[in-house]
Amino acid sequence: MTEQVGDGVKDLGYARLDTDRAARTGDPEVVYGAGKTPAQIVEILRTLHETHPERAVLATRVTEEAADLVVEQLPGAVLDPVAHAVTLGPLPTARGRVLVVAAGTSDAPVAAEAALTARVYGAGVDVVTDVGVSGLHRILAVREELAGADCLIVVAGMEGALPSVVGGLVGVPLVAVPTSVGYGASFGGLAALLAMLNSCAPGVSVVNIDNGFGAGVFAARVARNAAPRDPA
Amino acid sequence: MTEQVGDGVKDLGYARLDTDRAARTGDPEVVYGAGKTPAQIVEILRTLHETHPERAVLATRVTEEAADLVVEQLPGAVLDPVAHAVTLGPLPTARGRVLVVAAGTSDAPVAAEAALTARVYGAGVDVVTDVGVSGLHRILAVREELAGADCLIVVAGMEGALPSVVGGLVGVPLVAVPTSVGYGASFGGLAALLAMLNSCAPGVSVVNIDNGFGAGVFAARVARNAAPRDPA
Amino acid sequence: MTEQVGDGVKDLGYARLDTDRAARTGDPEVVYGAGKTPAQIVEILRTLHETHPERAVLATRVTEEAADLVVEQLPGAVLDPVAHAVTLGPLPTARGRVLVVAAGTSDAPVAAEAALTARVYGAGVDVVTDVGVSGLHRILAVREELAGADCLIVVAGMEGALPSVVGGLVGVPLVAVPTSVGYGASFGGLAALLAMLNSCAPGVSVVNIDNGFGAGVFAARVARNAAPRDPA
Amino acid sequence: MTEQVGDGVKDLGYARLDTDRAARTGDPEVVYGAGKTPAQIVEILRTLHETHPERAVLATRVTEEAADLVVEQLPGAVLDPVAHAVTLGPLPTARGRVLVVAAGTSDAPVAAEAALTARVYGAGVDVVTDVGVSGLHRILAVREELAGADCLIVVAGMEGALPSVVGGLVGVPLVAVPTSVGYGASFGGLAALLAMLNSCAPGVSVVNIDNGFGAGVFAARVARNAAPRDPA
Amino acid sequence: MTEQVGDGVKDLGYARLDTDRAARTGDPEVVYGAGKTPAQIVEILRTLHETHPERAVLATRVTEEAADLVVEQLPGAVLDPVAHAVTLGPLPTARGRVLVVAAGTSDAPVAAEAALTARVYGAGVDVVTDVGVSGLHRILAVREELAGADCLIVVAGMEGALPSVVGGLVGVPLVAVPTSVGYGASFGGLAALLAMLNSCAPGVSVVNIDNGFGAGVFAARVARNAAPRDPA
Amino acid sequence: MTEQVGDGVKDLGYARLDTDRAARTGDPEVVYGAGKTPAQIVEILRTLHETHPERAVLATRVTEEAADLVVEQLPGAVLDPVAHAVTLGPLPTARGRVLVVAAGTSDAPVAAEAALTARVYGAGVDVVTDVGVSGLHRILAVREELAGADCLIVVAGMEGALPSVVGGLVGVPLVAVPTSVGYGASFGGLAALLAMLNSCAPGVSVVNIDNGFGAGVFAARVARNAAPRDPA
Amino acid sequence: MTEQVGDGVKDLGYARLDTDRAARTGDPEVVYGAGKTPAQIVEILRTLHETHPERAVLATRVTEEAADLVVEQLPGAVLDPVAHAVTLGPLPTARGRVLVVAAGTSDAPVAAEAALTARVYGAGVDVVTDVGVSGLHRILAVREELAGADCLIVVAGMEGALPSVVGGLVGVPLVAVPTSVGYGASFGGLAALLAMLNSCAPGVSVVNIDNGFGAGVFAARVARNAAPRDPA
Amino acid sequence: MTEQVGDGVKDLGYARLDTDRAARTGDPEVVYGAGKTPAQIVEILRTLHETHPERAVLATRVTEEAADLVVEQLPGAVLDPVAHAVTLGPLPTARGRVLVVAAGTSDAPVAAEAALTARVYGAGVDVVTDVGVSGLHRILAVREELAGADCLIVVAGMEGALPSVVGGLVGVPLVAVPTSVGYGASFGGLAALLAMLNSCAPGVSVVNIDNGFGAGVFAARVARNAAPRDPA
Repeated sequence: MTEQVGDGVKDLGYARLDTDRAARTGDPEVVYGAGKTPAQIVEILRTLHETHPERAVLATRVTEEAADLVVEQLPGAVLDPVAHAVTLGPLPTARGRVLVVAAGTSDAPVAAEAALTARVYGAGVDVVTDVGVSGLHRILAVREELAGADCLIVVAGMEGALPSVVGGLVGVPLVAVPTSVGYGASFGGLAALLAMLNSCAPGVSVVNIDNGFGAGVFAARVARNAAPRDPA
Repeated sequence: MTEQVGDGVKDLGYARLDTDRAARTGDPEVVYGAGKTPAQIVEILRTLHETHPERAVLATRVTEEAADLVVEQLPGAVLDPVAHAVTLGPLPTARGRVLVVAAGTSDAPVAAEAALTARVYGAGVDVVTDVGVSGLHRILAVREELAGADCLIVVAGMEGALPSVVGGLVGVPLVAVPTSVGYGASFGGLAALLAMLNSCAPGVSVVNIDNGFGAGVFAARVARNAAPRDPA
Repeated sequence: MTEQVGDGVKDLGYARLDTDRAARTGDPEVVYGAGKTPAQIVEILRTLHETHPERAVLATRVTEEAADLVVEQLPGAVLDPVAHAVTLGPLPTARGRVLVVAAGTSDAPVAAEAALTARVYGAGVDVVTDVGVSGLHRILAVREELAGADCLIVVAGMEGALPSVVGGLVGVPLVAVPTSVGYGASFGGLAALLAMLNSCAPGVSVVNIDNGFGAGVFAARVARNAAPRDPA
Repeated sequence: MTEQVGDGVKDLGYARLDTDRAARTGDPEVVYGAGKTPAQIVEILRTLHETHPERAVLATRVTEEAADLVVEQLPGAVLDPVAHAVTLGPLPTARGRVLVVAAGTSDAPVAAEAALTARVYGAGVDVVTDVGVSGLHRILAVREELAGADCLIVVAGMEGALPSVVGGLVGVPLVAVPTSVGYGASFGGLAALLAMLNSCAPGVSVVNIDNGFGAGVFAARVARNAAPRDPA
Repeated sequence: MTEQVGDGVKDLGYARLDTDRAARTGDPEVVYGAGKTPAQIVEILRTLHETHPERAVLATRVTEEAADLVVEQLPGAVLDPVAHAVTLGPLPTARGRVLVVAAGTSDAPVAAEAALTARVYGAGVDVVTDVGVSGLHRILAVREELAGADCLIVVAGMEGALPSVVGGLVGVPLVAVPTSVGYGASFGGLAALLAMLNSCAPGVSVVNIDNGFGAGVFAARVARNAAPRDPA
Repeated sequence: MTEQVGDGVKDLGYARLDTDRAARTGDPEVVYGAGKTPAQIVEILRTLHETHPERAVLATRVTEEAADLVVEQLPGAVLDPVAHAVTLGPLPTARGRVLVVAAGTSDAPVAAEAALTARVYGAGVDVVTDVGVSGLHRILAVREELAGADCLIVVAGMEGALPSVVGGLVGVPLVAVPTSVGYGASFGGLAALLAMLNSCAPGVSVVNIDNGFGAGVFAARVARNAAPRDPA
Repeated sequence: MTEQVGDGVKDLGYARLDTDRAARTGDPEVVYGAGKTPAQIVEILRTLHETHPERAVLATRVTEEAADLVVEQLPGAVLDPVAHAVTLGPLPTARGRVLVVAAGTSDAPVAAEAALTARVYGAGVDVVTDVGVSGLHRILAVREELAGADCLIVVAGMEGALPSVVGGLVGVPLVAVPTSVGYGASFGGLAALLAMLNSCAPGVSVVNIDNGFGAGVFAARVARNAAPRDPA
Repeated sequence: MTEQVGDGVKDLGYARLDTDRAARTGDPEVVYGAGKTPAQIVEILRTLHETHPERAVLATRVTEEAADLVVEQLPGAVLDPVAHAVTLGPLPTARGRVLVVAAGTSDAPVAAEAALTARVYGAGVDVVTDVGVSGLHRILAVREELAGADCLIVVAGMEGALPSVVGGLVGVPLVAVPTSVGYGASFGGLAALLAMLNSCAPGVSVVNIDNGFGAGVFAARVARNAAPRDPA
């Protein structure tokens, strides 16, 4: 059986860590916690942090049990309990501005994952929650904030209509995140996903169901490269 | 082979006409034109009309070729070219008020079928078109009309978000009609159908894709049974 | 991070309560219990009830554990164990009449949710259960009751045929509720949903799988606005 | 390239004819006309007929163009224009009784294919058409005929509810045939197919969408093996 | 709320028992155990048995826990542990012969449910298991038994190919039962279901995934009505 | 029937033109040509152009017949025959840089629509075609160009793998466009769509199948807001 | 817009020809004819042939119109009318042996494409057609040939059962090709595809629906690398 | 009930063991552990091993609990904890060379099952893991090893792009294994499965989701029949 490990790679047996990736791309290291034991998450976080203590490490999809162990064993770790995510190490300077908009309270975990990810990837982030399409006054009330962002992340489950409404109000790049919130003919988020892909508002792009992380990475890349604005 | 025909039924060979149904339910006779030849549609319309000249007959999904023949051979027939539908005989007195709201210009045929059907089934009908969710000012501008109807029919293709937005504004019974307008991941109207079934606005019910007829029947039954209002 | 709370809104952290919505729409407050802890449900119910003790509050999809806590801590709460729902505060005067028809005993929870919802939303409600299409005599026996309602809610799983049969008997507005009762090629209620959307009986509209709540809201809005009838 | 042809097999190049199959199984020869040219259908029919002129040959899914050529060139051929099928040679003695029930006039071609197939495979056949579930009186009127058959074939498109209603009336073996009649969320007959597979009436079995032929074969095998009845 | 109970119906609160159905159709009473508590199953079985002790009652989809309680509390109950089913009361005289053929050992529960059901519904039953299409010698070895049956039930999961192979060997009516045995692209039995619906062997009909009960009812109705054979 | 037209809106009967939208959002006017007659496209283009001759108008999904009429009747119109699109009026100054990458020659029309749209919406655009994942040297050869763009549009049909490969090379915001190129289990682009939504490369977002227009709008909004770069 | 062409690449505008690929991989050049005009196919074939006249070029999915033009303008071209394919230039020496087995006559075009492709890619090829699973004697009759091949290609539509039966007879590597032959619940070949993916015979792999070309490439690569056999 | 057991077959009640199969095909015996109790797995392994102690037996999909019991009770058993598989008895001599390539660490179990299976079926095996398409340098680094194999097994979840990239580098027969790694629109591995079936690299064949076993059998059959190579 063949397997070598070169420079900048550490092999923990259950995971190969490319400890030089951040140097190449400017992005932080990320640990996808799903399917990993609490002890593995702790060890990976510690290894990545010790290699580059000057940079942030992000762990997503961290169970409550794993979060407890991380906080207990890694003193500098910061838990975001809504996002089910942990960061370790100093966050980068915020450049540009991402605004995360979430339709319902059940969408909060995905929105929080998107927000934390965008922040760890180097963007400034604001969040507005509970802005459902059946309450237009809430949406209209934040119209200025929507227009002032460099990139929008719009999170919604069920019928996934919020991106179309927001996308009709402003011309800002908009990443839509369907969530699995719903039941029956929601089919685990499929209804929201299809709705967002068929948005009548031009300039809406979509990521996978519940993929707050992916939306956060995308939006941070847009925002941190944006031309500076006058203060709003 | 066994087949008898009783009272109030006429057998044209390719169709059995239950000429007493209207007497039983108070609804008009309807000819579903899809899959029938122009000559068959003309003959069915004529037979139904001659049996009960005092009532309206409705033919839906009438091709252009069939429409031409109907208009040529049945002098009293009235063609609705947008709805691809024909009526013959006097329309009933309008009771109550149905408002049909359509998202885009491509949804017009389905909206027109719904409107004409509701009218033939005995309701008063108004139509507002081109009210997409990416143009909220159009929706907000008709808020009074929405609230004043006895039943709403909301027609939309693509992401099918309009019923959620309208349903969040008013508490009027709302029947949503998904249309097959769209492409790619619209999957022939499936995206809009799923979105409407998952609407976060309570009190939204849904009919089959492109089924303006069914929505019209439903809404007319609600409206014509509604308590009279003060003039708005 | 941005979040403000205006007039008529209470923020419990895990939920924002729009305590003035009922005043705007005439509908009761509703707590969707799925995904909330028993303690959260109790707190939301108490808050809404204290704000408007003269109106009913409804909590749906309440687990047995949550129901126990609610009944223990909120003396006035009334549990409907079949509907998995709780009400608190006086029910509104009943206007009009909704009839809920359920196909099988397994459909009873959805039917009960629909019935309770319609009642809390202001309609009078009757229920007939165990009226499967493979026992036509049961259906024919209640034909008079079907015809006398202002709106019908027809609940069925498996092949979802009941709305077509009922819809062929009477001309009353009919909202069909597919349930997830079934197995194999029922695909979690998809078979019943598709059947109902394709009903050959005109004037049938459909809500999401297991969405007794949505059907109840819709039917109540139709019934409470219906013209008064002579006593049947 | 390897290909041999043994006894009882004729190779026409575009088709291999197993001219002894009927001798082995007692079933007639069948030509599936879809995808074959009119000339090919004529040649296959002639070859099969000349080999066993004492038995019937059946050709299904015959286009109008092919039917014209068959009738012109094969004098003994009998066309069933509704079934889009042709027979050549004497039909077998009828044993047992198959009853074909069809929901709507658009289902007639599939019902006719089922009826003709069952007859050619050796059963006696009756047909009752236009028996939709939204007109229960039509179904109840033929209850005696239903109960008197050895096997029922129930043909329906759209919501496919008829087999459940019929299956609840009688304990006769029932083969359901979903048809592609419908639009939108019928998805080419999928809705009817799923409904029939989930029938709440026990003892309902199902064949492919529009597969009148398969239902006819199955029902004939049941009926011609049934114990003789007293005349009804 | 409306609910009456007439003659021949007992209402246990959680179930309405139509205790005269067997008298009308000649079929036994059946309890579908899924979703019922052990105590409910015991009570329903006891009630049905006491009403008609001279007839068999069948309970299907009985959990191990429920089976234990039934056997403990109802002395005459007979458990079929493979079929997860229980019978109570004397089985009817066997008429005709059903042969159940199962592809793999994992299909045994569905095959056993089909076999027991057919027996309780009045047919004689044989079973042949472990006859996969990848072992043709096993199938060919039972060819005589296949040809001698009045109705075949063929049970298979995964690719569902067995009905096509068996249906090509004999002209006996064949009911195919897809099972949920498989993983990945089996999609819970969908692959087997679609394969069986598309069988190239004519005269194959299909029931729902894992529906051994439905196949047993159907096959018993065919077999018990079959003309008597000479002993094979 | 209700319909008014306010300021800045022209109603052509078959279309309502919001001639002031560009002023509000800075985006050009766009005519979606699918489903419109050649004469309608010409009239809409002319009307929009005459209202704001200083701005570009874009017509997409223009058939060959319509393109001929447009070029004949509108002298200033410029046809992009690969994109099936037409522009009229001066293009805006190009800000930032969008790079469109297409996998195969069959993807060229969608790539061209994306490129033209991005240009009309104000970005500079380059295109690299025929960069399939089965020819990695082609991708690696353009690595510098990929890294130098402000936003990437990656167009691919069949297995839709290209965005993952490109997204692994550079940290530039990447919009993936699945195309309907393929057959069989491509299911009209569904395979590519699902692949892109599940990309292992973070920061990939997706638009509807064949939606080059949407990708172009999105990318232009990102690019024209990007901070200026040093010349590469 | 960026596009360069390097050594060994010819750009015809509508296609880039990598004329050195065969030298790198040992495989022939292939033209995928779908979506290309007859004139384009002729020009591509001519260009590839003139560059390497000593090697074969293959064009697949060639329409009848294109085939006529190719044969007229390229004297050395050889048309396979069943496979809808053309070759130009000398075929390579045959190494190893591929056996193509097809279930029905309608599967012949896909089988012929697979056979021709395997031959052009360097393998010896035999074909056996009309070997349906409902005629086991045909399969058993060719058992020796099956066992003697280096790789099997098994082509089937409808229920796709043939690979399981063949795979149970011999231990030869087996590539299954589902075809779109069928109707209704075949869903364009999906039923056969799923059946083959779930084959109970180990060692069956699958290609896309109707993808005879892919199967031919795969099988040729296996066969031409196989250890030589003693003559059978 | 009919069931006999002939020569070379042992019946354990819950399983029939064909103990002579290996002699017929040269393949090892295999126990599919899913759905079997630990005790059953131990007994089957022991029985097969005692019958042919000179050959290897393989058990796949063995739970941790079953693995513990096997190791405890069968001293010679060797556990592969990553593959969740056990072997008992001497492995055969390795002929030819299979290379297993896995995209991510989560794909390791499926890759290990494929590798162990190929080895037990008689091929030499190497494994390269963590070769995602978003890290092309890892793929390019093993290009020589890829080209030197007799058959490749490429394992990937999520977007399933790796087979296309690998298949574009070398002309070796390639079996792709989609895994269920992913979430949301991965739909349990469907996204990867569809991507692999639509690979633009010719000569890619596919097995069921997570079916490492099937890929291993297939690849071993190819490799052990391959012509010997010069040492690389």
